[in-house]
Amino acid sequence: MPQRVNIGLIGTGYMGKAHAIAFKAAPTVFSLSATPVCDLLAEVTDELAERKARELGFNRSTGNWHTLVNDPRIDVVDICSPNYLHKEMALAAIAAGKHVYSEKPLALSAADAREMVVAAEHAGVKTLVGFNYIRNSATQLAREIVASGEIGELIHFRGRHNEDYLSDPTLPHGWRTKRMTAGAGALGDVGSHILNMAEYLTGQQISDVFGQLQTIIPERPLENGEGTGEVENDDHAQALLRFESGLIGNMETSRVASGRKMGLAYTLTGTKGAIVFDQERMSELQLYTQAGPQARRGFKTILMGPEHPDYVAFSPAAGHGLGYNDQKIIEVRDLIEGIVGNKALYPNFRDAWRTNALIEAIERSHAEGRWVHINEM
Amino acid sequence: MPQRVNIGLIGTGYMGKAHAIAFKAAPTVFSLSATPVCDLLAEVTDELAERKARELGFNRSTGNWHTLVNDPRIDVVDICSPNYLHKEMALAAIAAGKHVYSEKPLALSAADAREMVVAAEHAGVKTLVGFNYIRNSATQLAREIVASGEIGELIHFRGRHNEDYLSDPTLPHGWRTKRMTAGAGALGDVGSHILNMAEYLTGQQISDVFGQLQTIIPERPLENGEGTGEVENDDHAQALLRFESGLIGNMETSRVASGRKMGLAYTLTGTKGAIVFDQERMSELQLYTQAGPQARRGFKTILMGPEHPDYVAFSPAAGHGLGYNDQKIIEVRDLIEGIVGNKALYPNFRDAWRTNALIEAIERSHAEGRWVHINEM
Amino acid sequence: MPQRVNIGLIGTGYMGKAHAIAFKAAPTVFSLSATPVCDLLAEVTDELAERKARELGFNRSTGNWHTLVNDPRIDVVDICSPNYLHKEMALAAIAAGKHVYSEKPLALSAADAREMVVAAEHAGVKTLVGFNYIRNSATQLAREIVASGEIGELIHFRGRHNEDYLSDPTLPHGWRTKRMTAGAGALGDVGSHILNMAEYLTGQQISDVFGQLQTIIPERPLENGEGTGEVENDDHAQALLRFESGLIGNMETSRVASGRKMGLAYTLTGTKGAIVFDQERMSELQLYTQAGPQARRGFKTILMGPEHPDYVAFSPAAGHGLGYNDQKIIEVRDLIEGIVGNKALYPNFRDAWRTNALIEAIERSHAEGRWVHINEM
Amino acid sequence: MPQRVNIGLIGTGYMGKAHAIAFKAAPTVFSLSATPVCDLLAEVTDELAERKARELGFNRSTGNWHTLVNDPRIDVVDICSPNYLHKEMALAAIAAGKHVYSEKPLALSAADAREMVVAAEHAGVKTLVGFNYIRNSATQLAREIVASGEIGELIHFRGRHNEDYLSDPTLPHGWRTKRMTAGAGALGDVGSHILNMAEYLTGQQISDVFGQLQTIIPERPLENGEGTGEVENDDHAQALLRFESGLIGNMETSRVASGRKMGLAYTLTGTKGAIVFDQERMSELQLYTQAGPQARRGFKTILMGPEHPDYVAFSPAAGHGLGYNDQKIIEVRDLIEGIVGNKALYPNFRDAWRTNALIEAIERSHAEGRWVHINEM
Repeated sequence: MPQRVNIGLIGTGYMGKAHAIAFKAAPTVFSLSATPVCDLLAEVTDELAERKARELGFNRSTGNWHTLVNDPRIDVVDICSPNYLHKEMALAAIAAGKHVYSEKPLALSAADAREMVVAAEHAGVKTLVGFNYIRNSATQLAREIVASGEIGELIHFRGRHNEDYLSDPTLPHGWRTKRMTAGAGALGDVGSHILNMAEYLTGQQISDVFGQLQTIIPERPLENGEGTGEVENDDHAQALLRFESGLIGNMETSRVASGRKMGLAYTLTGTKGAIVFDQERMSELQLYTQAGPQARRGFKTILMGPEHPDYVAFSPAAGHGLGYNDQKIIEVRDLIEGIVGNKALYPNFRDAWRTNALIEAIERSHAEGRWVHINEM
Repeated sequence: MPQRVNIGLIGTGYMGKAHAIAFKAAPTVFSLSATPVCDLLAEVTDELAERKARELGFNRSTGNWHTLVNDPRIDVVDICSPNYLHKEMALAAIAAGKHVYSEKPLALSAADAREMVVAAEHAGVKTLVGFNYIRNSATQLAREIVASGEIGELIHFRGRHNEDYLSDPTLPHGWRTKRMTAGAGALGDVGSHILNMAEYLTGQQISDVFGQLQTIIPERPLENGEGTGEVENDDHAQALLRFESGLIGNMETSRVASGRKMGLAYTLTGTKGAIVFDQERMSELQLYTQAGPQARRGFKTILMGPEHPDYVAFSPAAGHGLGYNDQKIIEVRDLIEGIVGNKALYPNFRDAWRTNALIEAIERSHAEGRWVHINEM
Repeated sequence: MPQRVNIGLIGTGYMGKAHAIAFKAAPTVFSLSATPVCDLLAEVTDELAERKARELGFNRSTGNWHTLVNDPRIDVVDICSPNYLHKEMALAAIAAGKHVYSEKPLALSAADAREMVVAAEHAGVKTLVGFNYIRNSATQLAREIVASGEIGELIHFRGRHNEDYLSDPTLPHGWRTKRMTAGAGALGDVGSHILNMAEYLTGQQISDVFGQLQTIIPERPLENGEGTGEVENDDHAQALLRFESGLIGNMETSRVASGRKMGLAYTLTGTKGAIVFDQERMSELQLYTQAGPQARRGFKTILMGPEHPDYVAFSPAAGHGLGYNDQKIIEVRDLIEGIVGNKALYPNFRDAWRTNALIEAIERSHAEGRWVHINEM
Repeated sequence: MPQRVNIGLIGTGYMGKAHAIAFKAAPTVFSLSATPVCDLLAEVTDELAERKARELGFNRSTGNWHTLVNDPRIDVVDICSPNYLHKEMALAAIAAGKHVYSEKPLALSAADAREMVVAAEHAGVKTLVGFNYIRNSATQLAREIVASGEIGELIHFRGRHNEDYLSDPTLPHGWRTKRMTAGAGALGDVGSHILNMAEYLTGQQISDVFGQLQTIIPERPLENGEGTGEVENDDHAQALLRFESGLIGNMETSRVASGRKMGLAYTLTGTKGAIVFDQERMSELQLYTQAGPQARRGFKTILMGPEHPDYVAFSPAAGHGLGYNDQKIIEVRDLIEGIVGNKALYPNFRDAWRTNALIEAIERSHAEGRWVHINEM
């Protein structure tokens, strides 16, 4: 009989639902070493928790996340709450000896993230942070191509994660626009994805950053409808990057980039070729190599198919397309195999700390008008 | 307590797995009126059935599909077997009073399909045929735009479903290349999708067809490796179309179209605009309207988002992308609501019969070099 | 001293100006065996002719095209008048022993075109018809790739030339909407391009057609503003095609295809690859081949560059882009080299007659509901 | 009788030929206030000059550019020589009282450029520098849209001009790789285009830059084939930008960006919309605005047509496409009208000096690791 891994889910917004779908589908999509069981769900009230447990298919519910964290039947605490709660919940879960699966960004500051790393490593629990876009088949393929040397040695990285969810200035404040609840703005919310992905794709660590931040809409209506209040973090940001090997690159992030809905995109240029990707066309990868005669060279649009990473579990036929939630299904597969088997989990808390550190380094660079090294953080 | 609908699945190839994933995920994605339960699975041997039930998450298994069809606990018989078995299984399921969810094409001939329609309607069971591409958010949106008159009155339909899965002439025979097991070739296998979709999108029935078929690779290696045998059906086909309203159009289908992996694509031209869609970019719809000044007109790339049909259940944020299996999840939602609620199911056996009739009309037209009216079939 | 070829241009609309630009630029773009001289220009009045000669840079002018045709200093009569005048002017030019460069379509009917072929061949003058899109670097490359066997043996041709210049029903009648002045409608005006190109690209002749025509806007305002009158030819048309080798294909053409501005596009599918082209992106060719591992296959976007046909004369650097008029410059190069050197001109009157014959065959097929063979015309 | 403007062209490489084509075609494309006459051509020897004059259609030739500069019949000296000769030639031409039309970049250093500005302004001659990409219809349209406020207030500029013409490390040294003959590397050669364009598109001046440069291929074969020598300037560069209004942005440039042939591209993001452009598809502009319902928003692909800047002179029909040389034809129109009429020329030497200053500011910023203000240059 297959092993079971009992999941305790905290938070049932966008991410909580996506996790639930993934837990339900993953055992049918993949042959897992153990079956994740949607066992216990926590929300802010008993009533909400009960309703959400019914909707998302969990066995039990609680209006108190402390109960969940300390429930002896729970193997993994899955944190899908607003960012400012990640730290407290993760530390409590770790203290209770649970493995932790947390949404990104890991924490509101590098210092907080560091504390979480230390706690998790000391306790010996496994951790995974939900930077799901790196699970996408096309992005896994991009990493493979880079690692294989097919495009030569990397000479440039360009990445962006731009969206327009706050481009309307009449949208009121929410947790995302306050430093206490969100930390950085676009840089933390979506920029964290492209910073994590820069290191994933290149297989290299970013060593230095030079950043520039801006708040485009300085005041927004207050949530209670009474007047306006200051926006406390960045609406968009950009940075030049240096990696340890000497590779250079740049990144952009925005929450006010009109027209961009899922604008995570990157270009990897090597000495012998290049890769272009846009998450808005998530099942395509553009590949250029210097192979063959000049007259037949060009960027090739590769549609994901069964020869590419993790695709075949979803469909044996090429071009049929993965969707957003499929990335989370792959993430859940990695979570389960990492916990049950002996596989390392990536990105764990330590890897995710780097993203928090890079965010802060970009902020400090902006403030001080100079390159900032990651080791300063 | 929510109602339960017990599913009996026959066949666990590509489609069987896709259905299983959809049954698992649908109750978490949507708020369903009843929960589909993966109850019983049939395969060709007890051993295979048992293994597949474990892999796909079914409660019980059997090596005899007759057992499944007659099991009193089963509410819906889900037929994912090779096409030539659809008829026998569906008639048996109908005889046992079960609702039937069948993969496409419904049957190998229009006459067979007609027999199934009569049986189902006489028995009063509900039926649904798995033309899943019409569930895609972008294609539902295309139908909405057409129906709303946003692009005026339709004046032209162009559709194709081209793939290249048999473009390699060294690929041996299989059930797809034999008339006894497949009926038509590309025309039945993938062409059925675009014929069904032509009627779905336009909201009109095709009345007349003029077709042309060709077998590009006339001989293929036999499956046992001993010599070659004749390919008995079309590798590709094309047809001119007339709809009841006078609308004209054309269609193409192929299994030897090098480079096309999921080449279902259509252009709908109206008196005031046009729509262009390609399933290889399934979360985009191109829309042109004559609105606004000439200098600002152009095809607009609309990324699916929460304002579009059925998208929000998968993600509250635009541009995040649906995948192939998400279409099946929507199909399962429709199945469950159709069975439990009072909603009509589309396409049911009668609707799917039309596709079989159109396929045969195209074949007859090819043979006789003349327009063939659907009523002749 | 280089030889000179004196040009007599009749007609100064869209095409007349494009020809004039090409005559001016061609000797600088290419090293020509002779220099075309813009010598004499004819328009409907002396005044207009004089003004246009000044604007377009011609030495002399006349309000009577007969004068031009019989001018002893003229070597080539260049016919850019409305289609219904092509025949009379060409026959007069041929009678005067001039080479003839005519815009397309050659004539209003196959019979007229045939008469022109006979006259030209009897007189031994050289002829060229302005199907300029076949001069585009990307389309020349497509033909080369087909001819070289890089995509194997051709198995399918899909072509269209759709525009929307008459999609507005309030646009009044003009010469294009009357049978006496235009012959066929969209089929003659733009459809002639894709029919000619089908034969150019495949290197094969179309033997049989099955056509369908439609007039979408049956009445239009009269040019004098008093009431409306019947549109006498097709607004759009489509046809299935058979080539001599057994190759099949289809074509579409329209003047009411909302959103399409330069919608000449084709897909050439072979047994080992495919080519996709769209004139709206005239400096790109999409190429797919079965070479290399499955996981690295995809359509490659080749940007035209100095390795491709005729590009280097315009720019030594790839990707810089040719424009519409550059196609005419290449056409003029071919005209001059054909006349001065020993190069065959393509498409000459005989080649262009085929297009007229195919147009009529499509019309007859539509009327009679059957395949029509080109030899019937 | 129309006025004539006698052109003296120095240099007949890539750019010299492009200018010659433009002089020949411009009077037929546009109704000019005066006719440019290809009068005198200078090359490095009499023989070469004579041959090139014949090929490019110039009346006279000389092997000594000083002769050309001082020829009394010459009105405009057109400098298409290698960059390091621009200054000497321009100063001589100005001293002789000629108008100067020079290729970009204006000079090898900001100081040199400044000297040229002073000389030209003191002499009262007109100047124009050949940043031709800003003449492209789509880019003119982009500027119009920005200026009109259709996309609100600009909040971000992203630009790049990347090519791969030196990505092959076996390519030997040439004038481009030496500081004495080229000044900056990619930054001067192609980066100058995107810097100029950033100011043109935004209608704002860049005030501060933060740059990063890199030489990817530090050694190349010597031109004489004997060993290798150091590459003395940047292979690629990137910078963060601040404009005077507070607008931020970034730029990239490269000559080793595998796969990019004409990789000049920009994204202009405003508070109410965005524009995306790629010179590899030079006749398209992507436009997003927040107008209309969310469910119908998306980037619109606008094909250039007669409603757009300068297009109609080339073709009265939309979508027919401009090419690289057509940009030069527009530039020549501007040159002639600027000289004969009272129109200001843009970019003149003063405007072009800014580009040189920005290049040096980026280099200094790289060296000093800090923001550099344009006024420091």
